[in-house]
Amino acid sequence: MAAAKFMSERNLKFLLYEVYDLSSLTRHSYYGTHNQKVFDMVLDAAIKLAKDLMWPTLMEMDHEPPEMSDGSVKVHPSVSGIMRECGEGGWIASGFPIEFEGEQFPVLFCSVCRFIFSAANYSAAVYPDLTAGAARLITSFGSKDLVETYVPNMLGGKWQGTMALTEPQAGSSLADITTTAYPTEHGYYMIKGQKIFISAGDHDGVENVTHLMLAKIQGAPPGAKGISLFVVPKLRPDETGQLESNDVIVSQVYHKLGYRGAPITELSIGDKDDCRGYLVGEPHKGLSYMFQMMNESRIGVGIGAAAIASAAYYASLDYARQRPQGRLPAQKDISMPQVPIIQHADVKRMLLFQRAIVEGSLALLLQSSRYADLEQVSTGDEKEKYALLLDILTPVAKSYPSEMGILSVSQGLQCLGGYGYCEDFPLGQYYRDVRIHPIHEGTTGIQGLDLLGRKVMMKNGRAFSLYLEEVQSTIDTAAAIDGLAPFSDKLADALHELEEVTGHLKSLAGKDGPEVFLADATLYLEFFGIIAIAWQWLVQAIVAYKALENNTKKKDQQFYQGKMLTFRYFYSYELPKIYGLIKRLMDPDRVTVEMQAEFFND
Amino acid sequence: MAAAKFMSERNLKFLLYEVYDLSSLTRHSYYGTHNQKVFDMVLDAAIKLAKDLMWPTLMEMDHEPPEMSDGSVKVHPSVSGIMRECGEGGWIASGFPIEFEGEQFPVLFCSVCRFIFSAANYSAAVYPDLTAGAARLITSFGSKDLVETYVPNMLGGKWQGTMALTEPQAGSSLADITTTAYPTEHGYYMIKGQKIFISAGDHDGVENVTHLMLAKIQGAPPGAKGISLFVVPKLRPDETGQLESNDVIVSQVYHKLGYRGAPITELSIGDKDDCRGYLVGEPHKGLSYMFQMMNESRIGVGIGAAAIASAAYYASLDYARQRPQGRLPAQKDISMPQVPIIQHADVKRMLLFQRAIVEGSLALLLQSSRYADLEQVSTGDEKEKYALLLDILTPVAKSYPSEMGILSVSQGLQCLGGYGYCEDFPLGQYYRDVRIHPIHEGTTGIQGLDLLGRKVMMKNGRAFSLYLEEVQSTIDTAAAIDGLAPFSDKLADALHELEEVTGHLKSLAGKDGPEVFLADATLYLEFFGIIAIAWQWLVQAIVAYKALENNTKKKDQQFYQGKMLTFRYFYSYELPKIYGLIKRLMDPDRVTVEMQAEFFND
Repeated sequence: MAAAKFMSERNLKFLLYEVYDLSSLTRHSYYGTHNQKVFDMVLDAAIKLAKDLMWPTLMEMDHEPPEMSDGSVKVHPSVSGIMRECGEGGWIASGFPIEFEGEQFPVLFCSVCRFIFSAANYSAAVYPDLTAGAARLITSFGSKDLVETYVPNMLGGKWQGTMALTEPQAGSSLADITTTAYPTEHGYYMIKGQKIFISAGDHDGVENVTHLMLAKIQGAPPGAKGISLFVVPKLRPDETGQLESNDVIVSQVYHKLGYRGAPITELSIGDKDDCRGYLVGEPHKGLSYMFQMMNESRIGVGIGAAAIASAAYYASLDYARQRPQGRLPAQKDISMPQVPIIQHADVKRMLLFQRAIVEGSLALLLQSSRYADLEQVSTGDEKEKYALLLDILTPVAKSYPSEMGILSVSQGLQCLGGYGYCEDFPLGQYYRDVRIHPIHEGTTGIQGLDLLGRKVMMKNGRAFSLYLEEVQSTIDTAAAIDGLAPFSDKLADALHELEEVTGHLKSLAGKDGPEVFLADATLYLEFFGIIAIAWQWLVQAIVAYKALENNTKKKDQQFYQGKMLTFRYFYSYELPKIYGLIKRLMDPDRVTVEMQAEFFND
Repeated sequence: MAAAKFMSERNLKFLLYEVYDLSSLTRHSYYGTHNQKVFDMVLDAAIKLAKDLMWPTLMEMDHEPPEMSDGSVKVHPSVSGIMRECGEGGWIASGFPIEFEGEQFPVLFCSVCRFIFSAANYSAAVYPDLTAGAARLITSFGSKDLVETYVPNMLGGKWQGTMALTEPQAGSSLADITTTAYPTEHGYYMIKGQKIFISAGDHDGVENVTHLMLAKIQGAPPGAKGISLFVVPKLRPDETGQLESNDVIVSQVYHKLGYRGAPITELSIGDKDDCRGYLVGEPHKGLSYMFQMMNESRIGVGIGAAAIASAAYYASLDYARQRPQGRLPAQKDISMPQVPIIQHADVKRMLLFQRAIVEGSLALLLQSSRYADLEQVSTGDEKEKYALLLDILTPVAKSYPSEMGILSVSQGLQCLGGYGYCEDFPLGQYYRDVRIHPIHEGTTGIQGLDLLGRKVMMKNGRAFSLYLEEVQSTIDTAAAIDGLAPFSDKLADALHELEEVTGHLKSLAGKDGPEVFLADATLYLEFFGIIAIAWQWLVQAIVAYKALENNTKKKDQQFYQGKMLTFRYFYSYELPKIYGLIKRLMDPDRVTVEMQAEFFND
């Protein structure tokens, strides 16, 4: 498989350097050892790794999915190389502090690398990403002992990390987990239970697997308040450091629609009463710890969705440039040659749609990552401000790319017509792969409840107010630029609607109770998301507009022209969708609440 | 695989008998031999056939897709039984006139049977459907000789029928076909060329394959005006009736994302200069003949999409009823048991969405079918009126179910969370299968151009005016019913917007030329489609509303309540989407026309 284009380096540099000013972060001492030259070099290396190691096995990993063999999971042979390269090359550790042998790169930069890997081969990127997230939980909350035993092996790519949350009866409702930890006098706990849907929960591409597992200590309070976090290895190091079985059994590997390069497993824990778990942090605080990893993973899911959509976009763009079919509407002379389909307005619309989704989503994800960096380098009120901004944007940055990524890939497939439906092209695989994202790390429905029920309401609406200020500041900047003022006005209208609708929904909470208040949380999330992406397009347009005025290189001109037209596309075709959503969100008809299960009988 | 529910018999009877009054057609002599008792019996038989013959192999046919073997295509062994049953049981012939040994059933009724079969197993239903469509082309336009040689074998299920249009360089642009027919002195033509994407183009479930093939007679005028229609069999009967090879070679069977139970093939025709083709009707009129089959197939695609969405809806409904997860928002006591997810407002929304799409789409398809029947039994102006109504609705009845079917199945999958992504449930297959529909029989983009560029404009807007009258008549009826008047007002507003937007776009045609006029034809199609489905929901609500007033049986009450809530769902959640589309359709920004291929460079 030739190294086709799966992402735009030009656009990544535009976002990193021109829009989000990555280098400015190096003025803070925490990121002070880096500079643009380093970033450029590492970016080149990431692209090379993605092209040489991950991309070539994209289709193969799909065609030869993980299978159970003798009680363990056999994955594609390239996985061990990927984990080794990502470990030894420092990619898993890239965002970790220097004290853990990490590179201490900004989250903004790490997110871009993650995007590159995921665009090349989403399944391949999951192994190291998951390992980094699990290791970070240990460095953040674990004892020195746990850090020393597990983290170097994980960051080195020798041991896989996982997050083990879901159980058969507890998916969206984590409060209902029943996996139990029994205290012993040796300090560790004996764990017993069952986990399902555990990504990379077992495989032969690594020496060992470290589960970051939620369980309830025997006698703990009911519900979420009784959940603790444990390190539960597949193989536990004995006193001499030798690895021995820890009674964690893979009972099943799921056969999935897509995302087939990575195994999703079912685990039986402690069937022989010999599974040891090591408490991370304090008892009963597991869920709050796990939220660190979940939030990071939610941004990661958004990145994965935008990345797959990026790969699909470039596959369809390539096809649209090559494929002659039909003539422009004004051309009545049938003897004239057919034109490449990229010349048809409707095909340009399908390409602009994809580009608007991919680049708009990526911008929001990088904006969120930047907030994480600003939180890192700030103190006091500033620190809290950026933490709150990241908090409120997380469900949006997870869901918008996930939901719209499906539609984006589907439009990419559509550009190829019948060929898009055939396995000779990768579009069908992308269409299957991208479907996972609205499901894992909290479904879209759960994200809607999180946004409206928690994030918008928390601290008396402080996160929401801060967010409004951020968007308003972009509106003000754009209003002062002649060519952008009309778009600034449109966003100002949309922001006003966001305030109105939010106020209306909040009033329902008191008047009609939580069920009515939250009934349309998913639609509210969609509504909020469109406006957030419109904001990010205006942020990009401000930079592109100025660059067009100052930049005369033809190649740059074309890039910025493309940016501006994609920006205009978003404001003309996507932003107006909020007006349909507003009608519903303000509608007093309580259809979904009044609907009864038995009315579905027929 | 147990016979799970894949469609609602209650809803089919509601639409057939209560809404579209099937029996009233039997007052016309053409359909006079039938009565409700016959319809009921045949409906039972169709459901039995679907459950016993088609449904059980749904997953197997997907897992064992067609493969090339010794130059021909091997399909799942159940295919021969399906074709035999559909032939001998009279299902392929069910819509044919008595003179061809058909049952002369109304199109409305045949569409319902087609829906039942497609919901059970879309791939399985394609074989007989395609055969019926091909045979009808011969009975409509072919010579007595062609009819006698081919039709009985096709309607009997012994010979497969196909439509062979697409070529490597001519997909959406059929004017560019190059397959050539050379006249001979024996009456037949020698055919030479290549066809791609031919559904059921070859398989071992039948004795022979009859291609209804487009080709250009040597020296014919360029473009669409030079296209003729031929019968090109795989095996041709010699003077004695023995079958001999006709030099039609399968060069490839495509490996597809879904819809894997049926083979899509590439054909080489006349490689050895020994392929005979038999002209159907007059030379150069092939495309207009073929449009009969294409229009029928377009309705068939809509039915297929709605049918797959129906199967996905019932699979997700079943899961939602069984699966306990979480508690209602007002329930803070974690010790209370979890509730089935069907009790969550957001899950009810996802189910209502699916039901609204499935039942709304099916209603529009049956409305279109009814117009076909009324055309059949009418004369003069009336006949033309129904023909025009069917004409203008065909692109909508093809596209709305196809596009929304994808989203509907995707929501079905979402209801199952992680399980929806696993192959233990059929949702993943439905998600793959349903993706074909916006592509085959004319992409959604082509349907948009057909609707706005041809159907709305033809005969000086007559079809469009007739359509407005039909919708207006429903609005007037509903306005007189207290409980429905507010919805009648909403549809009246929408219809007014349809007129405004249509007038605006028509004005662009003259002012800015065809490219600007047609640039947003796909969005116009979407806009038109939402209003058409809203109309069909009001049509259904009028019946359900009255039934609720008169009907006291609990089971019926639940069904009609469900109808009314789904109707309200559509008006509250789906219809408002037109207001976003109107903003775009009235927007003077010509983004997609101004976009240039080189601005996609990055």
